[in-house]
Amino acid sequence: MSDRSFEILETKERVIEDNDKVAAEVRDYLKKKNVFFVNLMSSPGAGKTTTLVRTIKALKDKYRIGVMEADVDSDVDAATVSAAGAKVIQLHTGGSCHMDADMTKRGLQALGVDDLDIIFLENVGNLVCPAEFDVGQNKEVVILSVPEGDDKPLKYPLMFKVGDILLVNKYDTRAVFDFSINKLCDSLNYANPSLKVIPISAKTGDGFDEWIEWLEKQITLSKEENK
Amino acid sequence: MSDRSFEILETKERVIEDNDKVAAEVRDYLKKKNVFFVNLMSSPGAGKTTTLVRTIKALKDKYRIGVMEADVDSDVDAATVSAAGAKVIQLHTGGSCHMDADMTKRGLQALGVDDLDIIFLENVGNLVCPAEFDVGQNKEVVILSVPEGDDKPLKYPLMFKVGDILLVNKYDTRAVFDFSINKLCDSLNYANPSLKVIPISAKTGDGFDEWIEWLEKQITLSKEENK
Repeated sequence: MSDRSFEILETKERVIEDNDKVAAEVRDYLKKKNVFFVNLMSSPGAGKTTTLVRTIKALKDKYRIGVMEADVDSDVDAATVSAAGAKVIQLHTGGSCHMDADMTKRGLQALGVDDLDIIFLENVGNLVCPAEFDVGQNKEVVILSVPEGDDKPLKYPLMFKVGDILLVNKYDTRAVFDFSINKLCDSLNYANPSLKVIPISAKTGDGFDEWIEWLEKQITLSKEENK
Repeated sequence: MSDRSFEILETKERVIEDNDKVAAEVRDYLKKKNVFFVNLMSSPGAGKTTTLVRTIKALKDKYRIGVMEADVDSDVDAATVSAAGAKVIQLHTGGSCHMDADMTKRGLQALGVDDLDIIFLENVGNLVCPAEFDVGQNKEVVILSVPEGDDKPLKYPLMFKVGDILLVNKYDTRAVFDFSINKLCDSLNYANPSLKVIPISAKTGDGFDEWIEWLEKQITLSKEENK
């Protein structure tokens, strides 16, 4: 018997003709269950897990939180997130570089949603492919980290176009990397000029008040719509 | 008329049944032309372009260098690399998250290889998909940057498995990110325990003597084989 606090599910991608149809099913299902669903996306190492851990700690006394950790391999993040106080499942994508709606549906079934208020999908670390797949989420949260550079929206525009909010993580290191939030906003003009941007540091907690306030507002709005 | 110093080619992915067959054609073609071909891969923002610029400056008096800049969008890197003294073509992948052998073949035809000794492909910033596609290269060079974390080989094992060398960039910032080269090597045990690792800083030039020495050795070996 394993002493892991979470299950590992192999969710290899299947050929699904209509991703948007399955995504609509997922969205409808979670609406009926009154569960708010966040798709969290970024490059590898931008700080999805650290951001998630601090977010869970800020919200766990108020909401019951579930997390689906999607990775090509390993379960290091699932262990970290489970220790923070969320119900966690590790999804192995079998080489796939993104989650699609069908993989998400199977993940939600295995996680079980009846005892949850919010679910986060920590998508595979990738600034390209995950942006192409609706997974039935309420909101798409994109993280860009300062060391990646302020020009990234020019090169990977779709991710910044689909995002509902952009968290600029590791903002405490901006002097080390000559990162300019003004240049970032210029870069966003092409993809999504009205995108809400919040600089944060998942390490120090800077910016989390604003991020948590935004998130709770979305949750409240969504739950009012579900009534 | 554009005043750009390079061409932009739209290389949207086509459905090719046998990538390995086309990769073998590319490899054979470049062998006949006596051109050494490097596939450079990393996450977004790990420092591929900065590493390339410094590498070009170190080698340009000795070799004629060509670069194919592959991006989903934009041409900011092509302009930078062209200014460093290489013959450059910008490839737009039309949404594709990686280069395959057919896209590479078309890129090489458009670039023209007759006046070149070395060609670098700067692949799309992505730690997953590019690792799956042989593009006919002589060597696969992988860059991991310190801010991404020392656990990345656990989560993205294929990239570290296919790599011929791993450059650990932004090594000058390791204290800021609590990055351990020993932990990185532990993480590599799973994917590729014998992978050669060189810590570098493309910003300061640290580690470049060793990297350039390794690269020149590979070029010499390859050109001897081509005789």
